[in-house]
Amino acid sequence: MNPIQIALLGAGTVASGVVKVLERNQEELRRRAGRGIEVAAVAARNPEKAREALGQDLPITQDFMQLATRSDIDIVVELMGGISPARELVLAAIAAGKHVVTANKALIALHGNEIFAAAQARGVMVAFEAAVAGGIPIIKALREGLAANRIEWVAGIINGTTNFILSEMRDKGASFETVLGEAQRLGYAEADPSFDIEGIDAAHKITILCAIAFGVPVQFDKAYIEGIAKLDAADIRYAELLGYRIKLLGITRRTPAGIELRVHPTLIPATRLVANVEGAMNAVVVQGDAVGATLYYGKGAGPEPTASSVIADLVDVTRLHTADPEQRVPHLAFQPGALADTPILPIEQVQTAYYLRIRVRDEAGVLAEITHILAEGGMSIDALLQRPSGESDQHTDVILLTHETIESRMNQALASIQALDTVLAPIVRLRKEELR
Amino acid sequence: MNPIQIALLGAGTVASGVVKVLERNQEELRRRAGRGIEVAAVAARNPEKAREALGQDLPITQDFMQLATRSDIDIVVELMGGISPARELVLAAIAAGKHVVTANKALIALHGNEIFAAAQARGVMVAFEAAVAGGIPIIKALREGLAANRIEWVAGIINGTTNFILSEMRDKGASFETVLGEAQRLGYAEADPSFDIEGIDAAHKITILCAIAFGVPVQFDKAYIEGIAKLDAADIRYAELLGYRIKLLGITRRTPAGIELRVHPTLIPATRLVANVEGAMNAVVVQGDAVGATLYYGKGAGPEPTASSVIADLVDVTRLHTADPEQRVPHLAFQPGALADTPILPIEQVQTAYYLRIRVRDEAGVLAEITHILAEGGMSIDALLQRPSGESDQHTDVILLTHETIESRMNQALASIQALDTVLAPIVRLRKEELR
Repeated sequence: MNPIQIALLGAGTVASGVVKVLERNQEELRRRAGRGIEVAAVAARNPEKAREALGQDLPITQDFMQLATRSDIDIVVELMGGISPARELVLAAIAAGKHVVTANKALIALHGNEIFAAAQARGVMVAFEAAVAGGIPIIKALREGLAANRIEWVAGIINGTTNFILSEMRDKGASFETVLGEAQRLGYAEADPSFDIEGIDAAHKITILCAIAFGVPVQFDKAYIEGIAKLDAADIRYAELLGYRIKLLGITRRTPAGIELRVHPTLIPATRLVANVEGAMNAVVVQGDAVGATLYYGKGAGPEPTASSVIADLVDVTRLHTADPEQRVPHLAFQPGALADTPILPIEQVQTAYYLRIRVRDEAGVLAEITHILAEGGMSIDALLQRPSGESDQHTDVILLTHETIESRMNQALASIQALDTVLAPIVRLRKEELR
Repeated sequence: MNPIQIALLGAGTVASGVVKVLERNQEELRRRAGRGIEVAAVAARNPEKAREALGQDLPITQDFMQLATRSDIDIVVELMGGISPARELVLAAIAAGKHVVTANKALIALHGNEIFAAAQARGVMVAFEAAVAGGIPIIKALREGLAANRIEWVAGIINGTTNFILSEMRDKGASFETVLGEAQRLGYAEADPSFDIEGIDAAHKITILCAIAFGVPVQFDKAYIEGIAKLDAADIRYAELLGYRIKLLGITRRTPAGIELRVHPTLIPATRLVANVEGAMNAVVVQGDAVGATLYYGKGAGPEPTASSVIADLVDVTRLHTADPEQRVPHLAFQPGALADTPILPIEQVQTAYYLRIRVRDEAGVLAEITHILAEGGMSIDALLQRPSGESDQHTDVILLTHETIESRMNQALASIQALDTVLAPIVRLRKEELR
């Protein structure tokens, strides 16, 4: 059988990983897919640089649109990143009847609904395993491997940069700024790291996982996003004393009121396997009603891990494109006509437990005032630590773990506590999840 | 579209899990698969008991063969276990053009080649996700999610009973016999636990993973199998002191000389995520050349976790049976014509590192003799502990970790050491893997 012809849009590090792995494993891939997978051509803005990165033999063009719609191409592989012109090119490829493979999490999280509708209408496949958690086949696990389950929640360490920073902060007791600088020197963080550390990258990914877990459209604009830039090493230490680790988690959960979709630093019990995922590694925990919790762990970034997922998608398309499009694995795991309009809850309606650090004047009755306010709001306390602030012997840090409550209630209580004249600094509030 | 009609062969605990989850999640499954999945009938030896277990409404027959080949059935689900009559029924179903889903690891490990050849010739699918690691979608991950990779090795905790026993032995410092009794009381071990504790169950599973990792036929008869019954709590303790945990691992690895396929108690570094998989949980680590190490964790047994995998296979067949059988995901991950005849290495040719515990007379020169014999055989020592035996102050236990060597060399050296008259008891030899 003729080799499948693919076009690469983009010639960056992921593209060079894809070319390298396709080349190195071509024999193995032919044995798996039943036919070869051949890069017909690459579109790149700078053909000189592309040739250096990908090798001299590949035909390179600067005309992205022409390549994305060329008649001899079976699958268009979009590796450019960003929204425009990636979106226009993907839509044009679909209109031209091409299958599409993309690693572009922002594109899928923001424009997935439009893209999947176009693909469904045209009967082509759009695959995006590489968009979430790099080399970990989590999309396939959720969409196919766990298809028997009513998914209850998904929680993941899905940004390697922030996990590296948090791991180092804990290991070395260092500040966020110090570790960020180190991560930048080591290449784990970009020169402008805001996309990672503000949680936006993780939010793109959990938005996609939310859609395929619960059968709802992708709704990035409804995600609650809080990054790690304001995290204090002291809180990592206190969490540790209480038996918890702090991780930047993407969380999505089905509740009777609607779906939670959120990214924020989260305390999780140190004994959980996922709490022990260190450095730049990623891991996703999925809770299904039949299987219970399953966990998926691996490299979440890097040219070859990302290429691993891109090429798995290429093999999938090669194996499955002849199946009836009406029945074939649906893009968002659920049939397009069967997506639900379950609302995504605003963060104020989310129910979770909390870690609070409150700097108070060290005098009698302060703790009673605080616990009284919490109790009045119906919030109960799970654990309590009191520690000298280290700044003045008239200041004390009160650290509280609460049981679960609704965020809006916690906000009210915190406003009242903050207004006490014995409270001397802005309250630190983190969310806590038991993940069970 | 009409619901897919399935026949269940067998009415045990897994069947009841399948019926329960199909019923509970029927709406969700229809949204995923695009059509319903309906149990048309169940074959059971004892219809009374089956009705009690599965509910009164299901049509139940005692004629397994008639049901396996009945014209209205789309998919036959074999949940009987054992080789005969499961093998005959599966082959008859295939001959009648039925797709087959099975949870039967022994059947696939021993007769997979025959079954897949028949299925390929008839153009039907045979799916067996539930045969390995219960609810963890590891077959799908290896066969599809990691398809880009040249797989280097797979190592898994794939038997929950033995992992529960080893976890308890470590936690409580208790003996194998004590913990086995406890596991039997708790229902984690069967009344006759030999299949689990002797490593046969794990060997069935690693045989299947070996085939789909490397594209070779299933070859259970070539697997090296060593269980945990002879494991001493002292060795778990010594391993711990050296920074290792002992797990019963199924291991399969590609080497230049051939493929390793083995099950035995194994020392692994305590810092590895997989070393922290406790109790009856399962986990599989896969090393691919592009993605690096990925890990898959979850429940390896139980009615609903197993049903999760069985039903995922049902959804897969529903989604994909219309694809061209020549290209569709191949049963063993590689095209049937592309399976390799790479030899499976006998254990004597396996290369690994070792843990040795040697009880010696406590006198000058004994250690020199032992290390001399190892050095003569080209084996170098990585770490050494010496401990009073606890039995006599004239006895000492010498604990050694060696670097990697060929097992046949180690056998020769151990024979020489055992023959020393300063060596007072049978040498304990365990294998050690760094998993990197």
